Amino acid sequence: MTDPARLSLNLITVDHWSLGEAVERCASAGIRTVAPWRHKVASTGLAESARIIREAGMAVSSLCRGGFFTAPDATEDNRRAVEEAAALGAPVLVLVCGPPVARDLAAARATIAAGIERLLPFAADHGVRLGIEPLHPMMVGERSAIVTIGEALALARGFDDPGVGVVVDAYHVFWDPRLTDELAGAAGLIAGYHVSDWLVPTADLLAGRGLMGDGIIDLPGIRALIDATGYDGPIEVEVINPALATVPGDELLADIAARFARG
Amino acid sequence: MTDPARLSLNLITVDHWSLGEAVERCASAGIRTVAPWRHKVASTGLAESARIIREAGMAVSSLCRGGFFTAPDATEDNRRAVEEAAALGAPVLVLVCGPPVARDLAAARATIAAGIERLLPFAADHGVRLGIEPLHPMMVGERSAIVTIGEALALARGFDDPGVGVVVDAYHVFWDPRLTDELAGAAGLIAGYHVSDWLVPTADLLAGRGLMGDGIIDLPGIRALIDATGYDGPIEVEVINPALATVPGDELLADIAARFARG
Repeated sequence: MTDPARLSLNLITVDHWSLGEAVERCASAGIRTVAPWRHKVASTGLAESARIIREAGMAVSSLCRGGFFTAPDATEDNRRAVEEAAALGAPVLVLVCGPPVARDLAAARATIAAGIERLLPFAADHGVRLGIEPLHPMMVGERSAIVTIGEALALARGFDDPGVGVVVDAYHVFWDPRLTDELAGAAGLIAGYHVSDWLVPTADLLAGRGLMGDGIIDLPGIRALIDATGYDGPIEVEVINPALATVPGDELLADIAARFARG
Repeated sequence: MTDPARLSLNLITVDHWSLGEAVERCASAGIRTVAPWRHKVASTGLAESARIIREAGMAVSSLCRGGFFTAPDATEDNRRAVEEAAALGAPVLVLVCGPPVARDLAAARATIAAGIERLLPFAADHGVRLGIEPLHPMMVGERSAIVTIGEALALARGFDDPGVGVVVDAYHVFWDPRLTDELAGAAGLIAGYHVSDWLVPTADLLAGRGLMGDGIIDLPGIRALIDATGYDGPIEVEVINPALATVPGDELLADIAARFARG
């Protein structure tokens, strides 16, 4: 059993709802923590988003996302992301680090390390921890050159600074034969943990995720590895699948809470 | 420039052709080596397939595929695959090792190791080398629990037997931050090298591959790593993409040969 108080709903799961509707429905369903995405904060307005969250007494586990360090406007955009995280009360800014340019993965990885180094003092000034999220290798071409837990941990360790950690999403890392060994050395470095499930077959590279229990990820096994690192913070449910928009809202949140509690 | 004599066409690239048509077209295009798949050999007939290949003076680089060790009938099916490889003159049987059962990746990996161990003497008797092919991690749920070059090499090394090696497909391994280090220790273990390209965006998990040069894989860089292992055998072009069926055959093979020679 998982303490229901650790459940945070990553709001991409219910991207079909406005921020206000999502917060209100979560509050009604007894979910007290959320993780908003920046596109929804932008369309709602930053001050209005902060007001909605504050007035509902809702906690924020993270803001998704900064990163994309290989893009030309990365520095400015990431500073804005840090400011937004601080304004929303998000302790962590999730970093999706950006894809390679001109087929050069090594260069992308160096650019990413340099970008995090540049952002770190600004984030520290704002009380925001940077959470490097390794993505599944199938996302390397469009989203991130950081695609293994080992690489993300090595990158974070290189800063030797509590202001940088790693966000582990079971969906992105479950396949890795080195997962157990890597997480065994991750004490103090975990900045967040996300859950969903890998469906078989998987029909879509981005939006084909399943609810916990519907796929092939050994979630209890990975959870035990995360627990062993000492991480005891929020656990985000992040399920990107347009089919969830067809489920009645109350039913969806009750189902998510029940699956979360079981696992 | 790559020696054109090293080009082998993996026939899944032209799965819209019969085996006879594929061999005849390859011969006309100056391609002297092919790698057939078992479903096409089965529909053609094994003896007839062997006759077609032999009479065209065509070499065979590998047979795709054995493996699926986590399936109930794996032992018998893999023995048939070895016999087919021997009958076709294929020096290598490519192993796609099979997905996990009941969410247990560690158990699947143990089953795979045991399955290879059981098959190895039979394969050796038939003069067929077993080539463990690590697949892209996005294929873990449906095709293989072996999803990294490091794991495949460790598995092969464990047998300490020239009858087991690793088939490296650039498409499956290019994203790996450990690729350079792992291939640096792979001398003598490479049983084959496959090329295609990773398209951006990638629309399909299985059949969304591109021709060399159309995607983001640093093929010259990976080729240099393969060369450094001492591997000097056939290089298979294996592009799974239904759009290739719409290209006139002569044009397609000329394009493949030209791209191969450049890189």
